[in-house]
Amino acid sequence: MKPSIEWKKDRVVMIDQRELPEREVYLECRDENEVAEAIEKMAIRGAPAIGVAAAYGVALGLARIQQPENLDDEVERILGRLEKTRPTARNLFWAMERMNAAFRKYRTLGLAELKKRMISEALRIEEEDIATNRRIGFWGKSLIEDGQSVLTYCNTGSLATAGYGTALGIIRAAIEEGKKIETYACETRPLLQGARLTCWELVREKIPVTLVTDNAAGHLMRKGRISLVIVGADRIARNGDTANKIGTYSLAVLARENRLPFYVAAPLSTVDFSLADGSAVCIEERSPQEVRELAGRPLSPAGVKVQNPAFDLTPARSISAFITEEGIIGPPFGKNLKRLQKRKKGNPENRDECPGY
Amino acid sequence: MKPSIEWKKDRVVMIDQRELPEREVYLECRDENEVAEAIEKMAIRGAPAIGVAAAYGVALGLARIQQPENLDDEVERILGRLEKTRPTARNLFWAMERMNAAFRKYRTLGLAELKKRMISEALRIEEEDIATNRRIGFWGKSLIEDGQSVLTYCNTGSLATAGYGTALGIIRAAIEEGKKIETYACETRPLLQGARLTCWELVREKIPVTLVTDNAAGHLMRKGRISLVIVGADRIARNGDTANKIGTYSLAVLARENRLPFYVAAPLSTVDFSLADGSAVCIEERSPQEVRELAGRPLSPAGVKVQNPAFDLTPARSISAFITEEGIIGPPFGKNLKRLQKRKKGNPENRDECPGY
Repeated sequence: MKPSIEWKKDRVVMIDQRELPEREVYLECRDENEVAEAIEKMAIRGAPAIGVAAAYGVALGLARIQQPENLDDEVERILGRLEKTRPTARNLFWAMERMNAAFRKYRTLGLAELKKRMISEALRIEEEDIATNRRIGFWGKSLIEDGQSVLTYCNTGSLATAGYGTALGIIRAAIEEGKKIETYACETRPLLQGARLTCWELVREKIPVTLVTDNAAGHLMRKGRISLVIVGADRIARNGDTANKIGTYSLAVLARENRLPFYVAAPLSTVDFSLADGSAVCIEERSPQEVRELAGRPLSPAGVKVQNPAFDLTPARSISAFITEEGIIGPPFGKNLKRLQKRKKGNPENRDECPGY
Repeated sequence: MKPSIEWKKDRVVMIDQRELPEREVYLECRDENEVAEAIEKMAIRGAPAIGVAAAYGVALGLARIQQPENLDDEVERILGRLEKTRPTARNLFWAMERMNAAFRKYRTLGLAELKKRMISEALRIEEEDIATNRRIGFWGKSLIEDGQSVLTYCNTGSLATAGYGTALGIIRAAIEEGKKIETYACETRPLLQGARLTCWELVREKIPVTLVTDNAAGHLMRKGRISLVIVGADRIARNGDTANKIGTYSLAVLARENRLPFYVAAPLSTVDFSLADGSAVCIEERSPQEVRELAGRPLSPAGVKVQNPAFDLTPARSISAFITEEGIIGPPFGKNLKRLQKRKKGNPENRDECPGY
């Protein structure tokens, strides 16, 4: 399988996720505007993948600068263009902060060298994301027992990341270890990332998957068909409140009602330590057309009013644990997320046994 | 507006709900098989409407009998054909029991007279259903305050009944009384009865409605956008456990989590007094194609495994009250549903003030 996002000298190539599962079409972006549009129109989506794509967008934007005058203003404009694509995913802003830090560090090296260093930084963000996902998978697989059924939501796989996936990476890791696992994928309205993307990834890898409508998840939990739920995240406040694809909150409430573990799998780059809780997270409202129509066919009467929030917020108290590249933590999340962040920065523990380090 | 179902001398005419909202196509059924197929393929759906259509199916089947020999066997065959269309809606079996009772009562009057009486009985079932819905609306409207927002699910309106509707009838009644109400309609995957049918009904009547995906309902409740939830029912056990469209259970759990009232609006013909609780309700599993495709366009990779339960079961403890034609009852439902059934059979209370009596 071709990678879902790939750097090629003077452009970034990504699979157009809007066309899946019907067609495998690859999109080439040659500047920051083309990358920004790909993110806005959801040709690429998934919080970690958005971060990687935007990092390449910065590298592409810089590569086109001919004169070193107004370099600061130009970089500010490029970062600003990419940052305003989608408001919720923390990883986008994290990647932009990192690219900006690289710019500050290398800007005195001369324009040619700076351009090379910025491409290297974007490549490093991509490589690190794959390694991070492998580590999330390594820790997370211990939470799934042989014979269990995992419910997952939206797409958190190779397509949503630089590769391997977060929640889906954990399912992959458990299966690579030889566990027999059933996966239930919710279709995830309105853009059907579960039906179109998660099922596409799993069917290709011959990982057993059953597709269900989002509204059937609670029924399956009540009937004992689900052992645990694992979802991804777009932004995590420092107390553990988690913004993720619309419908995640409902799954968390239903899991608790049915006494099932509800896990959030995400890299630490998804944690927004500046937010005390989730109340200030910006929830993106997307076009009514996403709900009203499908592929040009009306699903509802013309002009009906629609609310189409792309994300929701799951309160920390409905989350059993977070699975990160630095390990698994339960509550109290405020204290424990901070501890993981510190561990990541310095003093690594358990690194010998974990792949990707 | 033409009625959604109408008897015309030698046939029953119904709007083909599969074609809405794009086209208003009317389907003519001339025998019990055509009616059975219309029910199976969901050209007509909604528990009360299925009951009415099937009653006409019996009348049509009887009208075609030329010889009075084997009359009992023929009627048994006709009832059997209609009963095996869809297993969950109680109203279907209730209507068949009623048509069978009419047959037993009138069978000695001669074939010509019997045919007339059977048509009359089906017409009576239809008329009673509209009156029943008006009464449900009359009682139910007291539960909605001016300025509140009601979340509703699937379609429980004119299309789902002989006319006016159950949960949607309550919204209509409250609005007829002059209350300003916001209605949120969940789209109701996979067949989108909320998006296609509820929005079509409300937009035509200029009743304000906002369409949302099913997975957004919990988020809207958490954000304080919803004041109460009213849904219909397909089969209610005598303890109050309620089978309704897949996703109803999830809404009930989410309503309780958010301390919102969750009401079930249904005629008493939906109550199955033979069932002690909901555990024995047959949940219809429908074709995977309903989830995999939309209008021939694949929404998921070819051949992916699907589970497509058409209904789920909401435990009585998650229901705040039932709204029936005989009034509103809270728990204990076992005792109170029985009391309403008795009241319906004899001794009417409050009938002076309630329309439809």
